[in-house]
Amino acid sequence: MQLTVTSREKTQLLDITAQIQEHIRMQGIASGICHVFVPHTTAAVTINENADPAVPADMLRVLNKIIPWDMDYRHLEGNSAAHMKSTLVGASLTIAIDNDRLVLGTWQGIFFCEFDGPRTRQVLIRCIRDE
Amino acid sequence: MQLTVTSREKTQLLDITAQIQEHIRMQGIASGICHVFVPHTTAAVTINENADPAVPADMLRVLNKIIPWDMDYRHLEGNSAAHMKSTLVGASLTIAIDNDRLVLGTWQGIFFCEFDGPRTRQVLIRCIRDE
Amino acid sequence: MQLTVTSREKTQLLDITAQIQEHIRMQGIASGICHVFVPHTTAAVTINENADPAVPADMLRVLNKIIPWDMDYRHLEGNSAAHMKSTLVGASLTIAIDNDRLVLGTWQGIFFCEFDGPRTRQVLIRCIRDE
Repeated sequence: MQLTVTSREKTQLLDITAQIQEHIRMQGIASGICHVFVPHTTAAVTINENADPAVPADMLRVLNKIIPWDMDYRHLEGNSAAHMKSTLVGASLTIAIDNDRLVLGTWQGIFFCEFDGPRTRQVLIRCIRDE
Repeated sequence: MQLTVTSREKTQLLDITAQIQEHIRMQGIASGICHVFVPHTTAAVTINENADPAVPADMLRVLNKIIPWDMDYRHLEGNSAAHMKSTLVGASLTIAIDNDRLVLGTWQGIFFCEFDGPRTRQVLIRCIRDE
Repeated sequence: MQLTVTSREKTQLLDITAQIQEHIRMQGIASGICHVFVPHTTAAVTINENADPAVPADMLRVLNKIIPWDMDYRHLEGNSAAHMKSTLVGASLTIAIDNDRLVLGTWQGIFFCEFDGPRTRQVLIRCIRDE
């Protein structure tokens, strides 16, 4: 399954938990592993708190502080910082499925991470059944 | 399978390799993939050297240096640094299983990473057979 | 499957996409999940742009800048920075397989990450079919 995500900021975290959960319910996947993958090199996917919007906002601010936008980078597109963030946060994630639901903690949500937006992006979802 | 882990420090790395290995042996999973997942947003799971205790200690010290505890964070719980560490280290991990054993390198162990302790935490283990 | 990788620098990113793709084609794995794993504690595996060689070069430079080589580390082998990088980038990765091919974005390649070379290293490939 392919999910389309549209970012509106240069760096932005977008909660995609509900769309992934809905896909699993529609496909009737009772038990297994859900693989979430970002096919882009300046974006990523992560799990973190989706209750207080200050959490993703703080994460972007500290990440933008740690990884300098400007350094003596050689890559001419000027987005080397975005490539670094993509590798540190990661492009792939696996989550268990039980009773047609993602097995996530109370405060956990799945975030698409835009590091070089705004852009229209894809997220690939692939589930392996173990029934 | 659910593993209970109790941290005693604010930030701490706890070796959970033996408990995960014992679960695989007891379940009789000869071959497949083991999924290790932390259902918390201020903790993580990683693989690193578990021979010299100085390695996890050094990792915590450099991580605590890189990610500032105090910045102009907005999240009122005061643990934004812990959320950032959780996303950088990651909540999910996959390891192959062969002959009822985790396929790990000689020096590798699996560590539960506490970033906002001390607390009692859970680690979820899910194995997919490929026999 | 085991892939042997030889690094020539202290820190180096090596593109291993073609070797992994060739293994999948030879094994005739039409559909599933490919698990890529590094059994070392001072190396890692990541996905990023493999078109412009400036991208992996910039990533190594910023990573070497963020993680200090020298700090008041306790681990006597002197490679604590390499252990930290291994945990931040990660030892395990999962990628979907469709029609005998890795499902990667246009600009994505799989890189073995050497953080304490030069050395001869292993990369373990394990595929789960979902046909």
